[in-house]
Amino acid sequence: MSYEHGGNIYKKNIDMDFSVNLNPLGCPKEVKEAVTGAADRIFCYPDPAQNAVRSDLSELCGVGADNVICANGASELLMALVHMLKPGKALLISPSFYGYEHALKSDGNCEIIRYVTKAEKGFSVESDVIDLLTDDIDMFFLANPNNPTGKLLDSDLLLRIADICEEKKIFLVIDECFLRLSDGGSSMAEYAVKHDMVMVVDAFTKILAIPGVRLGYGISSAHNIKRLEKVLPEWNVSVFAEAAAHAGCTLLKGSSLQSNSVKLIINEREFLRRALTELGFMVFDSDTLFFMFYTKRDIYEPLRDKGILIRDCGNFESLSSGYYRIAVRSHEENVRLVDCLRTMV
Amino acid sequence: MSYEHGGNIYKKNIDMDFSVNLNPLGCPKEVKEAVTGAADRIFCYPDPAQNAVRSDLSELCGVGADNVICANGASELLMALVHMLKPGKALLISPSFYGYEHALKSDGNCEIIRYVTKAEKGFSVESDVIDLLTDDIDMFFLANPNNPTGKLLDSDLLLRIADICEEKKIFLVIDECFLRLSDGGSSMAEYAVKHDMVMVVDAFTKILAIPGVRLGYGISSAHNIKRLEKVLPEWNVSVFAEAAAHAGCTLLKGSSLQSNSVKLIINEREFLRRALTELGFMVFDSDTLFFMFYTKRDIYEPLRDKGILIRDCGNFESLSSGYYRIAVRSHEENVRLVDCLRTMV
Repeated sequence: MSYEHGGNIYKKNIDMDFSVNLNPLGCPKEVKEAVTGAADRIFCYPDPAQNAVRSDLSELCGVGADNVICANGASELLMALVHMLKPGKALLISPSFYGYEHALKSDGNCEIIRYVTKAEKGFSVESDVIDLLTDDIDMFFLANPNNPTGKLLDSDLLLRIADICEEKKIFLVIDECFLRLSDGGSSMAEYAVKHDMVMVVDAFTKILAIPGVRLGYGISSAHNIKRLEKVLPEWNVSVFAEAAAHAGCTLLKGSSLQSNSVKLIINEREFLRRALTELGFMVFDSDTLFFMFYTKRDIYEPLRDKGILIRDCGNFESLSSGYYRIAVRSHEENVRLVDCLRTMV
Repeated sequence: MSYEHGGNIYKKNIDMDFSVNLNPLGCPKEVKEAVTGAADRIFCYPDPAQNAVRSDLSELCGVGADNVICANGASELLMALVHMLKPGKALLISPSFYGYEHALKSDGNCEIIRYVTKAEKGFSVESDVIDLLTDDIDMFFLANPNNPTGKLLDSDLLLRIADICEEKKIFLVIDECFLRLSDGGSSMAEYAVKHDMVMVVDAFTKILAIPGVRLGYGISSAHNIKRLEKVLPEWNVSVFAEAAAHAGCTLLKGSSLQSNSVKLIINEREFLRRALTELGFMVFDSDTLFFMFYTKRDIYEPLRDKGILIRDCGNFESLSSGYYRIAVRSHEENVRLVDCLRTMV
């Protein structure tokens, strides 16, 4: 808990938080209402079998109810998978979400190998990653799109990686937490249910903008789901998460929430990209709601003094100071950020 | 998740649930309000450092803020401890809460030894348990009071056990989840902070009657808390649990909630004990809000048909069919239970 993620507003007086990657449309009112209503059920244990939630998610994701399992945020699944697999050697993309490293380090005995993406290649994961998929690797965490870069993997490459992992018995965790907020990319859920070495991890945290609720889920073969049940604490999904899952699944199936979100993201990301490029910052391409940029200018503290938090990427493995990540927010907020930055260059 | 605990109301149409062990006073309105209010903060990540919650709990429990850690229910802590310690051999009391076994089995490599308490001795844990504390034991889960028996350990015996565990490097987990709702018994929190082989696990689930919120905590040496941080998922305490913790700590410090609860429990437990004894059931002594009884009569299904759920203890290790556990509820509900039972004998 000593690692500093985005979204840590607890030490500062923050007005606009560009450091968290949440749907710029915010939490849908249907979800907020459902979660608020769940307060009437706090005297009930959540369903330990997660029947309702798993049924909702299986319908949304087009997989069987025995192919899905819920957790107290995706972070709980990452930890549980490491607990279950006890990998001796794992491959990570660098830079990427610190949570994979946090989970791997929990076991104490895991050697970590890194595929380092390069700035000059736009931080893309390329086909040479396959060279690192050697027989001695037990586990591979892959975010699609990746964080903090926002880059999606090429679909053919992803499929090749999955096939190789299946063949070489490398457990591949594909983190799709930002996929619903990306333009392009497709879920590997269908592949995962048929392959024992692949698991998709997702969460409603980002698409529904509810990081405070804690609701993640995993999709894999029924065999893997049964194994995961054994390493997850009982009653791990709160009644609030149960309510959010039901409301969220209903919305995602029956409304244009996802497409509207992506439309807004594309427009605002382009607005920010142009504006930051004009200010002389090096902006990296992204396929999702956040992107990285580089500048030698001192902007972090001055922005924070104005109540604006951005993600200093200096603590990502393989990134140095000068790299920042921001999420797309509402147009008004994005304009305010750009206006503030203008006064600093 | 295939084990059937109490409180699983999801498969049945239940009106009065005597199978869950929750404060008969119910959830205090201050807690309900605080939790409902937290719905306004679902767009925020919980504090990954848990600073406010740990500060509240440290004050309530009289330990340092670095001696306490919060979790998504006590069940998450049990799992995390097994993940952290990887015990080769563990000692359990039998019968006891299944959660310890669930956690131990998650590791796949732990041999489980059992100290079996006897009906003819009122299911008490006696000093001969010490004979089982041999050098090859790595971990010992001890609930005080125990569940399903409701029996507190003798304080001197508990202290002796803890000293022996410290000496023999047996990690002792003392589950005090029902201690605040017991008449007698004292917390080992103060001992735990000074001894690296002892951890107290507690939760607000029972005292505040909020099993749907998920809020557990552990108390131990600062060294152990730091180790636990490494095996717990990040952001594991939801904004609802944060709110419940703050409201709960305030109430438990500043009101007579705990003493009022215990008073009610003693009276109603005595009422139920007399009534069930009169009906010819064998009622076992208890020090807390639930107790066990034995009858050869077929009461489980007939009660369930009337919307009343009790805990069939037949799936507890070392108990057979005929043993039941009920929690004390409000006087009206207890009367209704007795009236129903009268029609069945």
